[in-house]
Amino acid sequence: MKRILVLNGPNLNLLGEREPGVYGTHALPEINRRLAEFAGTRDMELTFCQSNVEGELVNALHAARMWAQGVVFNAGGYTHTSVALRDAVAAIKVPVIEVHLSNPAARETFRHVSLLAPVCRGSVSGFGWHSYVLALDALARLAAEGEPA
Amino acid sequence: MKRILVLNGPNLNLLGEREPGVYGTHALPEINRRLAEFAGTRDMELTFCQSNVEGELVNALHAARMWAQGVVFNAGGYTHTSVALRDAVAAIKVPVIEVHLSNPAARETFRHVSLLAPVCRGSVSGFGWHSYVLALDALARLAAEGEPA
Amino acid sequence: MKRILVLNGPNLNLLGEREPGVYGTHALPEINRRLAEFAGTRDMELTFCQSNVEGELVNALHAARMWAQGVVFNAGGYTHTSVALRDAVAAIKVPVIEVHLSNPAARETFRHVSLLAPVCRGSVSGFGWHSYVLALDALARLAAEGEPA
Amino acid sequence: MKRILVLNGPNLNLLGEREPGVYGTHALPEINRRLAEFAGTRDMELTFCQSNVEGELVNALHAARMWAQGVVFNAGGYTHTSVALRDAVAAIKVPVIEVHLSNPAARETFRHVSLLAPVCRGSVSGFGWHSYVLALDALARLAAEGEPA
Amino acid sequence: MKRILVLNGPNLNLLGEREPGVYGTHALPEINRRLAEFAGTRDMELTFCQSNVEGELVNALHAARMWAQGVVFNAGGYTHTSVALRDAVAAIKVPVIEVHLSNPAARETFRHVSLLAPVCRGSVSGFGWHSYVLALDALARLAAEGEPA
Amino acid sequence: MKRILVLNGPNLNLLGEREPGVYGTHALPEINRRLAEFAGTRDMELTFCQSNVEGELVNALHAARMWAQGVVFNAGGYTHTSVALRDAVAAIKVPVIEVHLSNPAARETFRHVSLLAPVCRGSVSGFGWHSYVLALDALARLAAEGEPA
Amino acid sequence: MKRILVLNGPNLNLLGEREPGVYGTHALPEINRRLAEFAGTRDMELTFCQSNVEGELVNALHAARMWAQGVVFNAGGYTHTSVALRDAVAAIKVPVIEVHLSNPAARETFRHVSLLAPVCRGSVSGFGWHSYVLALDALARLAAEGEPA
Amino acid sequence: MKRILVLNGPNLNLLGEREPGVYGTHALPEINRRLAEFAGTRDMELTFCQSNVEGELVNALHAARMWAQGVVFNAGGYTHTSVALRDAVAAIKVPVIEVHLSNPAARETFRHVSLLAPVCRGSVSGFGWHSYVLALDALARLAAEGEPA
Amino acid sequence: MKRILVLNGPNLNLLGEREPGVYGTHALPEINRRLAEFAGTRDMELTFCQSNVEGELVNALHAARMWAQGVVFNAGGYTHTSVALRDAVAAIKVPVIEVHLSNPAARETFRHVSLLAPVCRGSVSGFGWHSYVLALDALARLAAEGEPA
Amino acid sequence: MKRILVLNGPNLNLLGEREPGVYGTHALPEINRRLAEFAGTRDMELTFCQSNVEGELVNALHAARMWAQGVVFNAGGYTHTSVALRDAVAAIKVPVIEVHLSNPAARETFRHVSLLAPVCRGSVSGFGWHSYVLALDALARLAAEGEPA
Amino acid sequence: MKRILVLNGPNLNLLGEREPGVYGTHALPEINRRLAEFAGTRDMELTFCQSNVEGELVNALHAARMWAQGVVFNAGGYTHTSVALRDAVAAIKVPVIEVHLSNPAARETFRHVSLLAPVCRGSVSGFGWHSYVLALDALARLAAEGEPA
Amino acid sequence: MKRILVLNGPNLNLLGEREPGVYGTHALPEINRRLAEFAGTRDMELTFCQSNVEGELVNALHAARMWAQGVVFNAGGYTHTSVALRDAVAAIKVPVIEVHLSNPAARETFRHVSLLAPVCRGSVSGFGWHSYVLALDALARLAAEGEPA
Repeated sequence: MKRILVLNGPNLNLLGEREPGVYGTHALPEINRRLAEFAGTRDMELTFCQSNVEGELVNALHAARMWAQGVVFNAGGYTHTSVALRDAVAAIKVPVIEVHLSNPAARETFRHVSLLAPVCRGSVSGFGWHSYVLALDALARLAAEGEPA
Repeated sequence: MKRILVLNGPNLNLLGEREPGVYGTHALPEINRRLAEFAGTRDMELTFCQSNVEGELVNALHAARMWAQGVVFNAGGYTHTSVALRDAVAAIKVPVIEVHLSNPAARETFRHVSLLAPVCRGSVSGFGWHSYVLALDALARLAAEGEPA
Repeated sequence: MKRILVLNGPNLNLLGEREPGVYGTHALPEINRRLAEFAGTRDMELTFCQSNVEGELVNALHAARMWAQGVVFNAGGYTHTSVALRDAVAAIKVPVIEVHLSNPAARETFRHVSLLAPVCRGSVSGFGWHSYVLALDALARLAAEGEPA
Repeated sequence: MKRILVLNGPNLNLLGEREPGVYGTHALPEINRRLAEFAGTRDMELTFCQSNVEGELVNALHAARMWAQGVVFNAGGYTHTSVALRDAVAAIKVPVIEVHLSNPAARETFRHVSLLAPVCRGSVSGFGWHSYVLALDALARLAAEGEPA
Repeated sequence: MKRILVLNGPNLNLLGEREPGVYGTHALPEINRRLAEFAGTRDMELTFCQSNVEGELVNALHAARMWAQGVVFNAGGYTHTSVALRDAVAAIKVPVIEVHLSNPAARETFRHVSLLAPVCRGSVSGFGWHSYVLALDALARLAAEGEPA
Repeated sequence: MKRILVLNGPNLNLLGEREPGVYGTHALPEINRRLAEFAGTRDMELTFCQSNVEGELVNALHAARMWAQGVVFNAGGYTHTSVALRDAVAAIKVPVIEVHLSNPAARETFRHVSLLAPVCRGSVSGFGWHSYVLALDALARLAAEGEPA
Repeated sequence: MKRILVLNGPNLNLLGEREPGVYGTHALPEINRRLAEFAGTRDMELTFCQSNVEGELVNALHAARMWAQGVVFNAGGYTHTSVALRDAVAAIKVPVIEVHLSNPAARETFRHVSLLAPVCRGSVSGFGWHSYVLALDALARLAAEGEPA
Repeated sequence: MKRILVLNGPNLNLLGEREPGVYGTHALPEINRRLAEFAGTRDMELTFCQSNVEGELVNALHAARMWAQGVVFNAGGYTHTSVALRDAVAAIKVPVIEVHLSNPAARETFRHVSLLAPVCRGSVSGFGWHSYVLALDALARLAAEGEPA
Repeated sequence: MKRILVLNGPNLNLLGEREPGVYGTHALPEINRRLAEFAGTRDMELTFCQSNVEGELVNALHAARMWAQGVVFNAGGYTHTSVALRDAVAAIKVPVIEVHLSNPAARETFRHVSLLAPVCRGSVSGFGWHSYVLALDALARLAAEGEPA
Repeated sequence: MKRILVLNGPNLNLLGEREPGVYGTHALPEINRRLAEFAGTRDMELTFCQSNVEGELVNALHAARMWAQGVVFNAGGYTHTSVALRDAVAAIKVPVIEVHLSNPAARETFRHVSLLAPVCRGSVSGFGWHSYVLALDALARLAAEGEPA
Repeated sequence: MKRILVLNGPNLNLLGEREPGVYGTHALPEINRRLAEFAGTRDMELTFCQSNVEGELVNALHAARMWAQGVVFNAGGYTHTSVALRDAVAAIKVPVIEVHLSNPAARETFRHVSLLAPVCRGSVSGFGWHSYVLALDALARLAAEGEPA
Repeated sequence: MKRILVLNGPNLNLLGEREPGVYGTHALPEINRRLAEFAGTRDMELTFCQSNVEGELVNALHAARMWAQGVVFNAGGYTHTSVALRDAVAAIKVPVIEVHLSNPAARETFRHVSLLAPVCRGSVSGFGWHSYVLALDALARLAAEGEPA
């Protein structure tokens, strides 16, 4: 059984309440419940973590290198500004998948560039909470091909 | 049964042969065979189209508005330069998912901006041929939620 | 009697159907009918051509140098990206008028610069299908002043 | 009968004398005479105004909101620098058509962007004094379709 | 009793009528009446001036150096383009407070930079007509601390 | 009685000691005491919070949505770099007023753009500790007009 | 005897009073007196004009084409922003010399580019009121070589 | 005997007729005749292809990978805009030499950057039709050194 | 005896493990041991602090102003993004030396600009763990010359 | 008697021969002769130096600090690229006047910025060889006012 | 017999030793020997010059205008920074061919722009020492067509 | 015993005299004497070279490849403009340490980018003449670890 970290960054604790037209109406615990359900079908076990503090997200990525076979990461607003998180993703050997609920390319200009994307294994965005599901599936598929995960 | 267009742009006819380290070792027909297989599990029927001509891709998108419930689109090099394709995606009501085999953010600067992304429903990139599978799954999931697809 | 090419680029075949709030509700054949009617009042004969393929538009401009006294050209999305079309306009001696249905300056930033404008005789934009009529009238007026057309 | 303001900005009082190769050989009064003549054929009455002072052009636009059904506006050099004029155009409900004698896109880079264009109803440029005629015709055509003017 | 100039730039004479969703529904005379009322509570006497002409605003600032102890200045569209007004603010010793009814940072990009801000004593924006009141209060508070005003 | 959060970001705990020529000589507790005094005159109750940690400021904003009718926010250096804080301000429905002691426009270039300004209700800057007072007054005035606060 | 216009733009009426460390301690009338004295030694007659209004400077340049053999022009803050003045300089055949009291290259970035310089005959800057004298001498020298002036 | 593709892009079919001052007076068939003649002296056999359609040029490059030992490629206006052609050049193993008749560096700014250059083996420009000859000679010389061609 | 803070930012806790080709094979505790040894030869006492949280680094700098005579600071990824840390360095009077193990100028473009450098006393980079030693030596040398340290 | 260095940079040894339409028809020795003649009328003695080598120009400036009271400097192409010359001008206490024969603002974009201008005492450009005369006169005038020279 | 200058700039004296993977394994004397051999077949006589000093390269170009019928010029690192060399090339009437051993477009960004290219007759790059041969051949071919050289 | 080149670029011969507030009060010979003293403690022998001529610095680097085990290089103003020096540093195998007396990041913008830094082994800046000492120590330390030096 593969162990996966589902890591959420700033403001994602407000999901379901914050601009539901953009981010959907499901609260984070509900989404996590659905992801755990899906993970069961892929022989994966999920650990959930959310923090609004950049450095705690760095810490979570560091810790994951000891126990996780993959990370699904929605870095929220830090996606576009954090060299520290980029370095953390690059520093660990666990594959990290970038996830977004909305489509950043259709929003403000400063959301068009992701500092994380170049060091992530791949990315999925624009499908609401399904983005997380698809990222989990991607990790499963890569693992099935012999890549670490 | 939903009908889906899998549309591939320039140079993708060389898949399997062209820089296999970047794009993978499967040829396009082999990938298409696998996609068709997957589509069967989602009650989808796929039509495949590949062209190196920008205008023919515009034509294919136009035509799709009459018969398709979704498009999975890898525009290759036109991703970064084609206002015409962007306008075509915006002009039709069928949801279009942007797909890339590699991770454009990890390549040359001119590949970091996608003219298509802002008008697509979502995007998946970096997972080789699995990117297409995940995009098909995304269409199926969106349709199951009552969105057109 | 002057012979004029009315040349339309990508996605303009969808006129009347595509974002009618932006582009108007008349289909291209209906617009062409009205233009032909207007042309009759100016002793002009119109030939219509639409293509989504950049190179075919280049071909049409090349051909026009043999038979046309003027071109009314809506290059659609190629307006902002095509050096090839710019070179084609510059290469032929026939005067070319740039036309837009909408007002590109009021839209996305990448539509604010026209690669064609510097080599066109003049431009008309923002008046829906009337933009074509005014461009035809401009050709007639220039010709009446002794300029080629 | 529709009442239209023909508004000219800085240096246009020198028409006919200033760089005739670029701006033509007709002086402004002569052009105005021709425009009045054309207006007669469209059931329009023209009022002419020229000023080199940015703020007086603002004043003229403000005043026009009380009596005019349309404005044909050549803002000259203020086209590229005046937020104040842009705000004035946006503040009044009368449709304003941007007009240029020459083709700004074929001149210096700083003439390639118009601050006014995004808030104007449309634009005509490159046809010498005929640009004004075509703009008047545009106002007449829009009015005939039920738009204000 | 302190004497204060309340100086308004282009298009502010249309307040109450111009885009009321952005600028509020009070006309300038009504706002001025309220400001005078407030000034009474702060031992201030207000002089009002509005002009659409950049140079007349320069003149008003120059004149204010002879009689005013403070200036509340809404330069409208000149905020973003006028080096002449910036130099005038820097040339006089009277403290000048920059005021905006709306929040320029939430509007078009060209409104994000103020040429005046670096030479003003401070700025207040986004509170409709209350912005002026707060600026007057700021002048009163600075004066009470021994700064000129 | 309205409840207001006065939120201060990084380095503001050093007020009175840090570059007093720029930021004034009052320490933060002294400023807070004065603000509380002023708040009493406006039927407001203040809660004070200062943190150097970006994510804790996000947390404070999140919490404020449950109990506060307004926020006065000096984000210090995060003003110019934090998408996370911008998203937090946008995510909550409480009106937030941006405040600065100094005039950022008169300082280094990287301080000229505020990522927070576009999502704040308004801003006040340049008046030392009075900036906070004026922001509180602004909240009181907006509330008196029927806006939430 | 040659007739020369000495034209001064915004804020130059404050010379001697405004930032004397930058602009010197002589008031404009005193400078003009010295210039007239110098002009006498070069068989030149000077006419002085100063305005804070951009359009009046345009008017003065237009008028000068009827009577002047040269213009010495300090456009102040309009130097960096006025396309209208640039067009006016280009429109008249009289040679115009750009003059600055201070050295704009040693000041803020937005003063490093002059819109007027490319259409002026030459420029002199950095020598206080002597800059005007040297510009007058330049006009005399060019005239002595057979150039108009 | 080595087989070489001489590939010409948009507007090069007008050679001899289009701006002869820039591109020379020889028509393409005449140039091709001379190239064939030269090729005979280097034991090369030439195949000629010209198209105005970007995608057909992609197709021609793809096909060349099956039969050609080298490509001499003048991409015309696509040189500066086509990621698709760049990808095609990179995808095939045949060495491609970039050729231009004129000197793009001496023309408009948008011609100063070539998207193809970084993936071509080398480039020759500025010598009219001799550029093609020199490129053929380059291929011959590289082949003689043991490089493929 | 001088007391010095050796402050390390995000991801430096992974030293020895993270990309050893770039950052070297020594773990942070081992490096710290060597630094303490060196410090003994310079009559310095070192305190070590590492955090992945930007605000905690701000806190550490604030605290250092009470007890330290110098700071050796490797801010990791925050070097390029943190205005808050820059303000903290500028706010305290203790001299701060910027240190990097690798040579940022030889890496990605976004690492070429340091927000901290302009407010640091000096910088040392590119010598692996020796960079810290050299920075300590620099502090000792500056102190010996009478500068605080 | 004041001693002045007249320093000329690269390619100015070709004056009279090189693009005479731009730089005039007088050779450098002839210009120098005229300058010496003028200098006699101002109680100045001139030393002439020309070099195409950037470092020799640095040397000449260094040497001038020992014997010269002023420098008239035409740095030619180094004007736009040489930080070394800028530092040399800033390092010596002798006033340096920047001189150009042509008007750089009317030429290519890369000639619009002068690295030397910010550290020169003033500049004169556009008057052919008279530019040097006017610069000498400027030095004489500044000296007469008590400035060094 | 035509006389040609083969001019090499900085670091080219290290050819054969410096990064042989990029620049080839032949030392400059060996290359020059081969070029002289080739020149014999084209009735050309070569003079070789190499210098690391920018100004000496200027001198060599100046001198060449007296005796050479053509120049083959590899300016090395000065290609991208030297306005002085550009002016020297433009100042002489001898045709200059720009040559590079490697393909600058495939290297660092600052090597993508050549300041010399716009004033050279043509350019050849990417073929190692053959680039020089092809440039010599180009000079011979242009001369055979009646151009100077 | 290791042999080291201490190489100084333009204007550093004026040390002690030039802007002592920025560069310190020690003349270059005095600094060199101290460096030689320090070198004795590290078993190093120093050779000193200073030139204002870019090409001579290139020559010195070239020569050093034959005899030196390390270079300490302060390139002065050439740091920011010289591709030739960058290429020279890259061409030789001797490790080069970049040194600055002042902190370039705290000065003008054009000093913020070093063309040399990416190819140097490391850099030290901001410590006055101690920067050289620390660079020598760095060379000694790298050599002790088995790196060449």
